[in-house]
Amino acid sequence: MQNDIMTRFGQAVRKLRREQEISQEELAERCGLHRTYISDVELGKRNVSLENIERIAASLNISLVNLFMEVDNG
Amino acid sequence: MQNDIMTRFGQAVRKLRREQEISQEELAERCGLHRTYISDVELGKRNVSLENIERIAASLNISLVNLFMEVDNG
Repeated sequence: MQNDIMTRFGQAVRKLRREQEISQEELAERCGLHRTYISDVELGKRNVSLENIERIAASLNISLVNLFMEVDNG
Repeated sequence: MQNDIMTRFGQAVRKLRREQEISQEELAERCGLHRTYISDVELGKRNVSLENIERIAASLNISLVNLFMEVDNG
């Protein structure tokens, strides 16, 4: 069974962040969010909303489409 | 200036729903959400979360990638 959307989203964010070799702290700072929030997102514990999805994508320098490509296919 | 993400997401949902010729009531029922919630989403008034984004995409029979392609390019 496919993982739930929060888990898949978190895994995608973690993978993309690590590929860019940036820390949770760095990503959080770029997003204007707290490091523990980013940690929770990556662990699939947060039902992230549109505005924060956009902040995360922008901070990873990718489009929403490319972010969800990773979510769908990751 | 580009519209905010909530507005763009709502416009994409409305466009895709209309292309499929289904009503807000029908989409809401498929999503297991209230019609007024779908109406608010389409008007850009809701900071929709991952779980509801997935419900809406599934109810429109499209992938998350294709939904956000409409959001990004719409």
